[in-house]
Amino acid sequence: MSDTIITAALLIIGDEILSGRTKDKNIGYIAEYMTNIGIDLKEVRVVPDEEDDIIAALNALRVRYTYVFTTGGIGPTHDDITADCVAKAFGVPIDVDQRAVSIMLERFKPEELNEARLRMARIPQGGELVHNSYNKVPGFRIANVIVMAGVPVIMQAMLDAVAPTLQTGVKLLSGSVRADMKEGDLGTPLREIAKAHPDTMIGSYPFWDEAGQPNTNLIVRSRDPQALETAMTAVKAMLAGLRTS
Amino acid sequence: MSDTIITAALLIIGDEILSGRTKDKNIGYIAEYMTNIGIDLKEVRVVPDEEDDIIAALNALRVRYTYVFTTGGIGPTHDDITADCVAKAFGVPIDVDQRAVSIMLERFKPEELNEARLRMARIPQGGELVHNSYNKVPGFRIANVIVMAGVPVIMQAMLDAVAPTLQTGVKLLSGSVRADMKEGDLGTPLREIAKAHPDTMIGSYPFWDEAGQPNTNLIVRSRDPQALETAMTAVKAMLAGLRTS
Repeated sequence: MSDTIITAALLIIGDEILSGRTKDKNIGYIAEYMTNIGIDLKEVRVVPDEEDDIIAALNALRVRYTYVFTTGGIGPTHDDITADCVAKAFGVPIDVDQRAVSIMLERFKPEELNEARLRMARIPQGGELVHNSYNKVPGFRIANVIVMAGVPVIMQAMLDAVAPTLQTGVKLLSGSVRADMKEGDLGTPLREIAKAHPDTMIGSYPFWDEAGQPNTNLIVRSRDPQALETAMTAVKAMLAGLRTS
Repeated sequence: MSDTIITAALLIIGDEILSGRTKDKNIGYIAEYMTNIGIDLKEVRVVPDEEDDIIAALNALRVRYTYVFTTGGIGPTHDDITADCVAKAFGVPIDVDQRAVSIMLERFKPEELNEARLRMARIPQGGELVHNSYNKVPGFRIANVIVMAGVPVIMQAMLDAVAPTLQTGVKLLSGSVRADMKEGDLGTPLREIAKAHPDTMIGSYPFWDEAGQPNTNLIVRSRDPQALETAMTAVKAMLAGLRTS
């Protein structure tokens, strides 16, 4: 455990998400996964299957965050252009990688490794394979960019494979309290508490409770357990005060 | 109906999405809604509740796309900073807007309009209110930026209110065919079809069918009904050919 803060961005590549045809299931999964292993997911972008857009997003994100995860666009068809875009973003050549071919031969017969499937073995020079326990076809990592499939079950297998190799930071801890109060009734005193506890992040999330009434969850987050506890105590005292006032 | 292409970006503002605590439900809804009204959603970004990040994203997106929709960060608490960020991005002042106060008085008693709730009536100068049939508290639009709530049911009410005022383009039409074939077995001929039909977009989406077998959906999209039909015919002929070969 170090006190370094490790950050990540997620780049989702796919026309089908932007058209609404496919509903994304990866953002929430990866966000929760990152929080649990002590990496701060700081940004998500969804871009279409267009080379310029993918390369621009890759280059913007990879210089800014510790890691960039991509999902989508690494299948066998013409609309799968992620690996080529990553190679262009890094300015390195890309070709069929014999390590990937060997792994794919554990699943496919040699005659099945046609031109389309061999596209899935194209890895930018310098890339390391990311194991896929689900159906073999690997993802890859080059520098701080980790390239994964878009299909959730395969993405999840790749994330499990790559996670132990990542640098992680101090996990962000959190505490939550249900206010049993409307957000607008606690906003002013909550602001004071947030101001008085700058080493925490305090979020306020409205919801409708089981009685159909507007209610609020307050979430305090911090890397420092003591700071978290102090702020939680202050939030609870505020709520108790508001309830009796 | 014009042949103009109208584009949009979606900016989701919220730590809770990036931490994984809240699972986003707005991307898929808005993506499908845009497709249905003839607006191309070209990019989505999720950013934290941090002023610099929000302003940078707003300024990057609003010059690039016809419209920018934002969700989140317009509630009554200290972490709701979207309206202020929009004002800063446009370089205009922001203050409590009497039109918004009047509307909120339809729901709240005057004594309920405390400092926190009045924050929800802060609208950047030049902004137009976006009606919220769900619980009155309005969103707003300034230039090409439309600011909506993050709570899905409220966002949806605001989208319904603003949609009739938007410029829309020629709707992207689509056709789909289930290949009953693995993606890797059709990738090569599909690439040829995609190349031969440049006025269409052809996507290939693997899935597992009801028998648990890898299968593929092929989706053809175009603004030109004739081009769509011609490409769909070519795709179906390719599949028939592959099945009998």
